[in-house]
Amino acid sequence: MAEAASTASTKARIGDSEFDRDTAVTRRAPGVYDIDLSAGWTIINAVNGGYLLAVLGRALADALPHHDPFTISAHYLTASAPGPAVIRTDVVRTGRTLSTGQASLFQYADDGTEVERIRVLASYGDLDALPDDVRTSAEIPAFPPIDQCFGAGDAPEGAPPVPGSSAITDRLDLKLDPATLGWALGAPSGKGEMRAWFGLADGRDADPLSLLLVVDALPPTAFELGLKGWVPTVELTVHVRSRPAPGPLRVSITTRNLAGGFLEEDAEVWDAEGRLVAQSRQLARVRLS
Amino acid sequence: MAEAASTASTKARIGDSEFDRDTAVTRRAPGVYDIDLSAGWTIINAVNGGYLLAVLGRALADALPHHDPFTISAHYLTASAPGPAVIRTDVVRTGRTLSTGQASLFQYADDGTEVERIRVLASYGDLDALPDDVRTSAEIPAFPPIDQCFGAGDAPEGAPPVPGSSAITDRLDLKLDPATLGWALGAPSGKGEMRAWFGLADGRDADPLSLLLVVDALPPTAFELGLKGWVPTVELTVHVRSRPAPGPLRVSITTRNLAGGFLEEDAEVWDAEGRLVAQSRQLARVRLS
Repeated sequence: MAEAASTASTKARIGDSEFDRDTAVTRRAPGVYDIDLSAGWTIINAVNGGYLLAVLGRALADALPHHDPFTISAHYLTASAPGPAVIRTDVVRTGRTLSTGQASLFQYADDGTEVERIRVLASYGDLDALPDDVRTSAEIPAFPPIDQCFGAGDAPEGAPPVPGSSAITDRLDLKLDPATLGWALGAPSGKGEMRAWFGLADGRDADPLSLLLVVDALPPTAFELGLKGWVPTVELTVHVRSRPAPGPLRVSITTRNLAGGFLEEDAEVWDAEGRLVAQSRQLARVRLS
Repeated sequence: MAEAASTASTKARIGDSEFDRDTAVTRRAPGVYDIDLSAGWTIINAVNGGYLLAVLGRALADALPHHDPFTISAHYLTASAPGPAVIRTDVVRTGRTLSTGQASLFQYADDGTEVERIRVLASYGDLDALPDDVRTSAEIPAFPPIDQCFGAGDAPEGAPPVPGSSAITDRLDLKLDPATLGWALGAPSGKGEMRAWFGLADGRDADPLSLLLVVDALPPTAFELGLKGWVPTVELTVHVRSRPAPGPLRVSITTRNLAGGFLEEDAEVWDAEGRLVAQSRQLARVRLS
């Protein structure tokens, strides 16, 4: 008991963690929020799209009478950079069980004019008010135990370090299924699959807002398809279906249709109690190589 | 040859068909379009959500410099009714290969004020400008031949007529896979699957805009899960991945996660040449019974 309590005390808590501090928005006026986008969630030069979605999701959680994103769709317009940004929200409709809102994130051009980075449309509700029924037929994909999976810090012996490492790597506790790690060893599987155990490095448990980050935090499935280079997101929609239980998440991403220079990435997130807590799909561009 | 030409001449053509007439919008001013929502695409009392999405998609195709919806997300706010409506579009960003726009459809309250029905965010491009590469791993689900599938007019002998028949039934040439028709015989399979061959009744072939209707035109998967009643869409996102070839489409819809009073419907649309031309996902509410 003492040991468990001691372990728990070293973990960051929801509301007091790197993720919470870096997604915190400051209300300047009704529907207008300031944020300094953190450099801590970048991959190479790009701010992670899931982190950006969580920032917008937090502003909407403040602007709307409901606080949990049930379904949120983001269209990525121009590339965000770490630094100051402003979010403008618009309450589209408020209802008894669902409210719908819109939000845009802007940064500043050299001449000071606002440039829109992302626009989001979302419907929020109260996850805790949903009935308990679960009649899902979805099954958790087979995952090896977490200690048989690999993170950025423990590449298999003789292998080069996992590429793509960047600031975000330090903030995530990502353990990739070796079956989807071929790309890091120069031998991609050819299958559009990526699977990982997911945690935040400071131990903060998941909540509905952090799930918006989780769905976009794994290496692109394109790597396992043998493609290199950047896979920018055009649009990302996330359904949050249940409040996640404490503990590590399992994330499975699948791409079935790579064609015409675009692909979809379907993500599923399972919590430690084996519940499907989020589903997402994004449309991304690929540069074929 | 003469026979083929004669058959072809009896088919409605893209641009001159029921679907085109019923989705035609009239530009009143820049970014403002009028439409009279047709009563021909209703199910029971509701205007079909895919028809509505096609109407909004047509307004955006006019407002944006690109004309094909690549990814379009709709949040359904209040129930639409046949009759006059106005659409307001907003060009969010125009780029070389993609443009992003927003659109809202409004109808009128008794006192004449506008009530927003649907809000949409979409990125458009030019499907014909995409490279020809197809590296899809998705496979067409097994479909029985079209003459072994069943439409509203040909219920199996001794069976009651397919329920849910309504105005839209007359405009669609929908042939359901008997494996997903148990609900109509009082014996739902318990699996969240619905599959059908899809055509428009007047023979008009599919185009990117009509695919927005196609993904939402089958009976709800909830029927095969043994649920009755209404399954209103909260949000629907469609990716159009390729211009469909002429001929009947195959549509497969899957629900994996029914929980907390919500479910997702994932649709795939395959054209007559076996190409995956559209993928969609919607979040819908269910009334458990």
